[in-house]
Amino acid sequence: MTDETDTTIAAESPSEHPEHLSPEFVRTVLDLVEAGEIEAAREKVAPLHPADIADLVELTPGEQRRQLAAAIAGLIDGDVLSEMNDWVREELIEALDPHEVADIAAELDTDDAVAIIEDMEEEDQRAVLRALDPDDRAAIEEALSYPEESAGRLMQRELIAVPEHWTVGHVLDFLRGQEELPTDFWEIFVVDPAHKPVGTCALSWILRTPRGVSVGDVMKREQTLIPVEMDQEEVALKFQKYALISAAVTDDSGRLVGVITVDDIVHIISEEAGEDALLMSGAGDGDINEPIRDSYKARVRWLVANLFTALVASSIIALFGAAIEKMVALAVLMPIVASVGGNAGTQTMAIVVRALATNQLTQSNTVRTIRREILVALLNGATIAVLLGIGAALVFGNPALGGVIAAAMVVNILVAGLAGVLVPVTLERMKQDPAVASSVFVTMVTDSMGFLAFLGLAVAFGLTG
Amino acid sequence: MTDETDTTIAAESPSEHPEHLSPEFVRTVLDLVEAGEIEAAREKVAPLHPADIADLVELTPGEQRRQLAAAIAGLIDGDVLSEMNDWVREELIEALDPHEVADIAAELDTDDAVAIIEDMEEEDQRAVLRALDPDDRAAIEEALSYPEESAGRLMQRELIAVPEHWTVGHVLDFLRGQEELPTDFWEIFVVDPAHKPVGTCALSWILRTPRGVSVGDVMKREQTLIPVEMDQEEVALKFQKYALISAAVTDDSGRLVGVITVDDIVHIISEEAGEDALLMSGAGDGDINEPIRDSYKARVRWLVANLFTALVASSIIALFGAAIEKMVALAVLMPIVASVGGNAGTQTMAIVVRALATNQLTQSNTVRTIRREILVALLNGATIAVLLGIGAALVFGNPALGGVIAAAMVVNILVAGLAGVLVPVTLERMKQDPAVASSVFVTMVTDSMGFLAFLGLAVAFGLTG
Repeated sequence: MTDETDTTIAAESPSEHPEHLSPEFVRTVLDLVEAGEIEAAREKVAPLHPADIADLVELTPGEQRRQLAAAIAGLIDGDVLSEMNDWVREELIEALDPHEVADIAAELDTDDAVAIIEDMEEEDQRAVLRALDPDDRAAIEEALSYPEESAGRLMQRELIAVPEHWTVGHVLDFLRGQEELPTDFWEIFVVDPAHKPVGTCALSWILRTPRGVSVGDVMKREQTLIPVEMDQEEVALKFQKYALISAAVTDDSGRLVGVITVDDIVHIISEEAGEDALLMSGAGDGDINEPIRDSYKARVRWLVANLFTALVASSIIALFGAAIEKMVALAVLMPIVASVGGNAGTQTMAIVVRALATNQLTQSNTVRTIRREILVALLNGATIAVLLGIGAALVFGNPALGGVIAAAMVVNILVAGLAGVLVPVTLERMKQDPAVASSVFVTMVTDSMGFLAFLGLAVAFGLTG
Repeated sequence: MTDETDTTIAAESPSEHPEHLSPEFVRTVLDLVEAGEIEAAREKVAPLHPADIADLVELTPGEQRRQLAAAIAGLIDGDVLSEMNDWVREELIEALDPHEVADIAAELDTDDAVAIIEDMEEEDQRAVLRALDPDDRAAIEEALSYPEESAGRLMQRELIAVPEHWTVGHVLDFLRGQEELPTDFWEIFVVDPAHKPVGTCALSWILRTPRGVSVGDVMKREQTLIPVEMDQEEVALKFQKYALISAAVTDDSGRLVGVITVDDIVHIISEEAGEDALLMSGAGDGDINEPIRDSYKARVRWLVANLFTALVASSIIALFGAAIEKMVALAVLMPIVASVGGNAGTQTMAIVVRALATNQLTQSNTVRTIRREILVALLNGATIAVLLGIGAALVFGNPALGGVIAAAMVVNILVAGLAGVLVPVTLERMKQDPAVASSVFVTMVTDSMGFLAFLGLAVAFGLTG
């Protein structure tokens, strides 16, 4: 993170800083590699920021990726790897020798090293660990002993902790005297004799305070401590809520064991917030770099689930086969009721899933939220019902049909609003991720109810004679 | 952000730190307010972190919210307001006198003050600005002159900038001597005589470097500069990509005019990543605190749009009215083809919208992504086709019907995969937000194609005699 490449595209022309590498640039580099002009390719790539080199590798098609990686091997260091898409990195790492991986891991902070090693096959993982020097190995092994996606995996063990009785001068001398300090740090931690954190000190306060003052007097006692087993999603929410730059991680006995910094959290905030859209759609947690086999497996499950819920809706239609035979307009109109209802349900569900994910929706306001969504549903339902009812009455020259479809629409949008709140809230109470399964249930409800309300009312009101 | 409340729930019991305020706690406070025991209520609320006080206000139902706000008025300061949900804050601010708002704004950093003032009615805004002292007013007026959601609105003007020839000792003395410094800062900026940034220095490097060294020798020249008009979404992507803690903001002529820090960005990262799920569902950018009128307006637009796309699908069914009358099984099965196809389209669309939002999908890999999605679609289509084809053949005792629905399923899932990539990519090329409108188009395509392929093939293969 602190490598001091002399220039970047960013520094040279801030206002024209490309949002991403231009297709021309990517093509130029790949053409050079293809033509065997390795030196020229390296010269093009060398001035890039590690994150841009990572992007370049991602943008290169699979077949050419290894060629490129071989050509610019020396430039793909730990910083590049830790910025790289998980799938692409995994593929690259698999092609490397355990010793090469160990060399890369050794130069990284614990958290970045763990991110690279944790996805490897167990056998390769052991080979890499063996190749590391004992200190690094112990740190990484300990991190790996914590559950996946927990604070223990995210934290780095390199941190500055000082006793409360030290003065600011003490701290300054200590920092200047130390050779081996974390690459970057933003706060120092104050600990008691049992190594339990009692406060934090932003570096800016240290800088502004006279040497004689004790750190106990400048530190902030209020602090958010992160238990080492806390899930990364919760860690991310804490960083957002309390606007943290870094936070102390403590073990079961309350001792300070590591630090998590915000630059490692921004990725997680973005991932966790973005993945709900993917999960709700039934696309798993994949992206465009996921291997096709994994994408197939993740998605087909939900399509099969959707197939079964569609069968439920379908069997409701089957009950009304005779009515449809008599009045084919019913078959023409019924998907509208289901479709608009499904959309209304998805709207509410998306709002509720997001509110649950950000801890905005709790037991204190569930009832209020249900009431709110029913009100919105009534307004929406009435609007759509009027439009569709009048339209259907005119087109089919049948006011009764218009009335029936209008009534069915109101019923289905109301049901959609209710299901849109109740399904995700219930899943959350059952300790399930509401983003994962809500969609299937909500769609089943709105499809089935759409057909049932419309066809049922049509029969009840004698439309089909 | 630096207020030094002595304790928080977090500091006292890290491992039991509640994820959100317990319903019991909320009820207790509201009961105290209701009973007029204002002092007791204040005592309960006072030890909370500003972000938790903001949550408490959000969790309180609308009717009781003003009562609560009045009771704990002194505790609702700028820090609490800047942590509060936009809708709830707007409602509270509207109830305040301009002078009260000005008092609150004066104690905040520019960016937080702007966030509070920018949503006010113009007249109230002017009243607040008049009540501010001239320096604060000028800073806020300038920020308001930048476009909404731009870097200019996000930045704070309080920052440390030093000339390149200064030594570390110089910087230290300067920092100790200044009374009026930003509340918190993590990096200092090095500028040339024209006040253009030439490098940044993390405080940790200043702390570790001997006094005699010049800042030009410790600073990092590589830096990401943010033009003042840059959209906040892009700013957030830069912070993520380059793992920034703070970044210099420059005006058109390249002069340093402000700084954006990561704690102001985490909210935006989360909002921007999370809002795509809401936008795709057609729920606008609202949340459970949005006023019902606004929710209705945002959502009904998309339901009406959906109504029209459903009519397209519906008119395709109408073309096949005669076929349905002869074979009602077609009406029973057709929603399955549309529904599973729609789901497959949504899966691809969600992946593609996310990849576009994170700059993972560019011109360099569009064709590759289309090829990839077609492959996944073929696999998914084949799987579903086999299941559904055999099932339909058995249930209806009609192998030809099974063959037709299987073929229709493959066609529709393929079309869904194509539409799932092409629709959002095309919208992006046309400078539209792909999250906003993709869903309507993709659903229209998969619904229409589902009915057309199934009913069309049924007729073509003479199923209906």
